Amino acid sequence: MVYIGIDVGGTGTQVGVVDEAGRILAQGETPTGVGRPYQEMIRDMGECMLDVMQKGGFAEADVASIGVGIPGIADPKTGVVIFCTNMGWKDVPLRSELQKYLNKPVNIDNDATVAGFAESVCGVSAGCHSSVFLTLGTGLGGGIVLGGRPWSGFHGVGSEIGHIPMHHDGEPCSCGNQGCLERYCSATAVIRMGREAAEENPKSLLNALCGGDLNALNARMVFDAAKQGDSAAMKVFNRYVDYLCKGIYTIIAFLDPEMVVLGGGVSKAGDFLLNEVRKRIPDYLLFKTLPYSRVEIASLGAEAGIIGAAMLGR
Amino acid sequence: MVYIGIDVGGTGTQVGVVDEAGRILAQGETPTGVGRPYQEMIRDMGECMLDVMQKGGFAEADVASIGVGIPGIADPKTGVVIFCTNMGWKDVPLRSELQKYLNKPVNIDNDATVAGFAESVCGVSAGCHSSVFLTLGTGLGGGIVLGGRPWSGFHGVGSEIGHIPMHHDGEPCSCGNQGCLERYCSATAVIRMGREAAEENPKSLLNALCGGDLNALNARMVFDAAKQGDSAAMKVFNRYVDYLCKGIYTIIAFLDPEMVVLGGGVSKAGDFLLNEVRKRIPDYLLFKTLPYSRVEIASLGAEAGIIGAAMLGR
Repeated sequence: MVYIGIDVGGTGTQVGVVDEAGRILAQGETPTGVGRPYQEMIRDMGECMLDVMQKGGFAEADVASIGVGIPGIADPKTGVVIFCTNMGWKDVPLRSELQKYLNKPVNIDNDATVAGFAESVCGVSAGCHSSVFLTLGTGLGGGIVLGGRPWSGFHGVGSEIGHIPMHHDGEPCSCGNQGCLERYCSATAVIRMGREAAEENPKSLLNALCGGDLNALNARMVFDAAKQGDSAAMKVFNRYVDYLCKGIYTIIAFLDPEMVVLGGGVSKAGDFLLNEVRKRIPDYLLFKTLPYSRVEIASLGAEAGIIGAAMLGR
Repeated sequence: MVYIGIDVGGTGTQVGVVDEAGRILAQGETPTGVGRPYQEMIRDMGECMLDVMQKGGFAEADVASIGVGIPGIADPKTGVVIFCTNMGWKDVPLRSELQKYLNKPVNIDNDATVAGFAESVCGVSAGCHSSVFLTLGTGLGGGIVLGGRPWSGFHGVGSEIGHIPMHHDGEPCSCGNQGCLERYCSATAVIRMGREAAEENPKSLLNALCGGDLNALNARMVFDAAKQGDSAAMKVFNRYVDYLCKGIYTIIAFLDPEMVVLGGGVSKAGDFLLNEVRKRIPDYLLFKTLPYSRVEIASLGAEAGIIGAAMLGR
């Protein structure tokens, strides 16, 4: 049997046919086309799915289930997408709508959960007893995998690690609270701190790398400047690592998973980031002499979304 | 079959024989006698256990297993207590030592985990899909129960919810970090804030209730003064509830359990505390219109330790 995985993004939607081991056997893409009625958006997903199946030579009988990763949350019982802000979706019956094109069981979960699950099936956390995945991107998403299954909570609203309070009366967050982890550990946080540092240090490499246009400054430029030893950028990097270590330590103190996996744009900094994080985590530990969660960089890249979504039905 | 439960405290150790449903069938107590060699302390536990079995009319063949709840952490594989600060224990072979008195499987877990597990077997969270228990006492302990089993993490050091960072650069904690949840949500935190308020407001009821001796002020007095409308005490109460709600919201955002259970000394404030917590939790929620974890007060009281320890082997 094979599994269909659909990774719904703000711009494009990726569709793949995946085997039991998490290998992608056929793949395609369709524009998500945000702004249109949901029926049209899901029709395109459905047609893309049938198209990819045909190209790969898979019949309806070969497919065990369909899985969808969305940047939002869904009710696992009804298959209705409750919220998906970037898509403009609210109470969209994704499961029943998709079943018009292929009548198979449809599982839906959050994109960070799905990506973390993919890593636990055939990525860096494969075979782990438990893992927590962090997407360090525009926001900060979390994916919890326990005993080989994604954990989304009792009401399907868990693993919102980006909105854990880290700083009482801290930076205001889009969610309405203050001091959420996301405000300190996302790529957006790196950029915000980088801009502040560039303004305070006009001679910093930060200004040069963005051509003097601070609106063009991205997280990679901040890390690149730090790598080259720019002192303003190093301060931002050190501050970011402090916050990230505190976030990772929160996961360790709470859940003590076998592994914490870093994904998303910021994780592309690779060893430069990972080595510093690993060096500083022990400072926070409650039990300094005991083994604790390994921290690793995600290994699957952009295809994690398709793979994890497909594997929801395995 | 029956199960032995041993609840090791700083002063006394409670021992009970417990049935499949979590009912205590026979019970006894022995002084813990901290300061003596561990062999002597465990000998007293062992003899108390045999004594309670005899009083209850249970033979060795009736006992399925022994469970021990300790104010520390143990290696689940070896049954060695790694740390138990209040007892002065470090690397104590509790399992093998206890088996000298009764040769049965011995399970050891943290006391907060065990108490939370007891609530999930036959207390307020019985039958729950998932629950997180908080002991609001001298410190702040956490007990996670998922799918009917205690979750202690991969390395056995999880559910240390009291040491989750809540306040960047906040109050120094005994663990070496700053701003841990325990510093704001324990009974100790209520007392600290109460003393500060009493000093700033000499006419406050807080001063009267402790007879002018701020060293005698306890959390109950602070709550009693708040109940009677004392404005300084009300401010402390409101601040405490804010912190506690943030702590509970951290649990909801992270794990989304079916229930969050409040236990320990502070939870004896009952509805006065619970109603206020329930009123304010929605302010923090990410998804304001969706169902979320129920918050309840623990129902088992002091016997949770025996019951939960016993049920570890069920």
